[in-house]
Amino acid sequence: MTQVNRQWCVADAPGSAGLGLTREQFEYRESAVPEPAEGEVLIRNVYFSCDPMNHAWVKGMEERFVAIPVGQPMCGGVSGRVMKSRHPDFKEGDAVTGFLEFADYTTTGAFDRTGTPLQRIPDGFSLASGLATLGMTGLCAYFGMTDFGRPRLGDTVVVSGAAGAIGTVAGQLAKLCGARVIGIAGGSRKGAMLRDDLGFDATIDYKNEDVPARLAALCPDGIDVFFDNVGGAILDAALANMAHGGRLVICGGIAGYNSQAPGLQNHMALAMRGCTMSGFFFFDYVGRFREGVDRLARWMNAGQVKEVLDVADGFDTVPEAALGQFAGANMGKQLVRIADDPGA
Amino acid sequence: MTQVNRQWCVADAPGSAGLGLTREQFEYRESAVPEPAEGEVLIRNVYFSCDPMNHAWVKGMEERFVAIPVGQPMCGGVSGRVMKSRHPDFKEGDAVTGFLEFADYTTTGAFDRTGTPLQRIPDGFSLASGLATLGMTGLCAYFGMTDFGRPRLGDTVVVSGAAGAIGTVAGQLAKLCGARVIGIAGGSRKGAMLRDDLGFDATIDYKNEDVPARLAALCPDGIDVFFDNVGGAILDAALANMAHGGRLVICGGIAGYNSQAPGLQNHMALAMRGCTMSGFFFFDYVGRFREGVDRLARWMNAGQVKEVLDVADGFDTVPEAALGQFAGANMGKQLVRIADDPGA
Repeated sequence: MTQVNRQWCVADAPGSAGLGLTREQFEYRESAVPEPAEGEVLIRNVYFSCDPMNHAWVKGMEERFVAIPVGQPMCGGVSGRVMKSRHPDFKEGDAVTGFLEFADYTTTGAFDRTGTPLQRIPDGFSLASGLATLGMTGLCAYFGMTDFGRPRLGDTVVVSGAAGAIGTVAGQLAKLCGARVIGIAGGSRKGAMLRDDLGFDATIDYKNEDVPARLAALCPDGIDVFFDNVGGAILDAALANMAHGGRLVICGGIAGYNSQAPGLQNHMALAMRGCTMSGFFFFDYVGRFREGVDRLARWMNAGQVKEVLDVADGFDTVPEAALGQFAGANMGKQLVRIADDPGA
Repeated sequence: MTQVNRQWCVADAPGSAGLGLTREQFEYRESAVPEPAEGEVLIRNVYFSCDPMNHAWVKGMEERFVAIPVGQPMCGGVSGRVMKSRHPDFKEGDAVTGFLEFADYTTTGAFDRTGTPLQRIPDGFSLASGLATLGMTGLCAYFGMTDFGRPRLGDTVVVSGAAGAIGTVAGQLAKLCGARVIGIAGGSRKGAMLRDDLGFDATIDYKNEDVPARLAALCPDGIDVFFDNVGGAILDAALANMAHGGRLVICGGIAGYNSQAPGLQNHMALAMRGCTMSGFFFFDYVGRFREGVDRLARWMNAGQVKEVLDVADGFDTVPEAALGQFAGANMGKQLVRIADDPGA
């Protein structure tokens, strides 16, 4: 165990005009490795999750994301190994994941920084999978698609941000439901991956194609389920192409995080076609995390859900990887590996 | 029976920049009183309904509203008396309502211009009520509030366009559910009517008050149900003030009919607070019209739902009354009475 605890902390620097982060908001610090108090564990973090939601930790958002004070470590999804345990439910070597500090080492009780129980990663899965398909993003895809999108056999399902951490899983789950799945993603490389590796039926390259025209052409009977990770003009185009009785799932809105996206113009399509647009708050589903993780793990083991990871290597790559989210740089789940898994 | 059949027809004139109508689009014509063919009835129209949806008949909208050709009579909600019947299900003197021509006399089979069965007005109710509380607008309030808003005892319900045909009924239904009801309407006269006559708990005058600030002040625990007839900035303000798990019902969007309303900026509130925004298409509920009419009639008889009518008198007032909708001129259901009820 190294004696230095590297940390990414919140700097006293201006954020972006929108909701995103800036490089200047990341400040590198070093501290001593903490000791767990009674009821706590010490975790060796191995993977950090880079999500659009990282901005929420810095700015604060609703009750689960209290803004982190300047000088304190940033937080986000991490996975790692329990190195010392003073909590009866955890023992040394346990693979765990939770919302914790972006540092080499962190101490926590049984509840993480959002008040969510520290999650044990199922046996046989890597620390990366525990943070990706079996972590927040996989669970968002699972609850969003199965509870709100509810694809029926034969439905046409469109996923925006399809090549991202949530979109890759959401689209595959829709395929398992017997739906025809169209992914919207930027660039031909992402489209090819979705079609060739994950079995999407078609893709739309929003950087080089006319999204409304392509949606209309690919969905002549309308969109039954639109699973949205993006918002803005793409959501508006989907609204204009919904089938009667269609469901829109609002999972993310990255278009609105970094800059003010144009407002939605087509919400009246909900009334004209009897559609429902639903959001869901991840933390409402804590009581069903086990259900989601168990099912996703089963589908992964069966090869029915493939994991797409985009792993940056090294503690110093965190700001770049986190900011790359907002430019759509990543393909699949963006992780940063900061150390070897001491339990592997 | 007069020998002249007055009609309001679609003129060869430009519409408004938005989705509304212009005075120039109304053309007065006269024709002969038609004779019903086998399987048809001849109706003496008595009331015309002026709704924001009137524009849809001129421009066409989705499958139920085929654009009416220039020179042909405009259509909309009407109520009247069967004068001659060559259909076995209707007899002379029957009080009926449906989507029919804006003319003194009209012939129709058992299905109106939207393919909806011609509706019989319940005994004991006027031709005005048959077109208002027991017609499309009352039914929209009923299905929207009970199926989608679903107020629970103690909920805070906000209705926009609260002094309109749908809003007045929707708010009263929410009161019957045991909710606290806040109405948004323009001008002190409408607010006083909602509070004093219909029992709304509070009102917001959008023409003279800061809607977001008033919503925040009146709904400290958030809005559980937002029933929207307006769209635009008022819907955005509601999104920003929703309670966790809240339901938004998109019934109308008059703000977007006449001019392009500013787009919605706050749809991500759906995800952050686990809210659902639902639209419904009136014609999907044909199979339940009887349920809605029976219940609304019962509540009217019990004095639990009061009807607010704004009746213009005379065939020539139709364009003004129809256009006044878009300026919020009416209080309650805007009708035009074009003749005495021959069956009264």
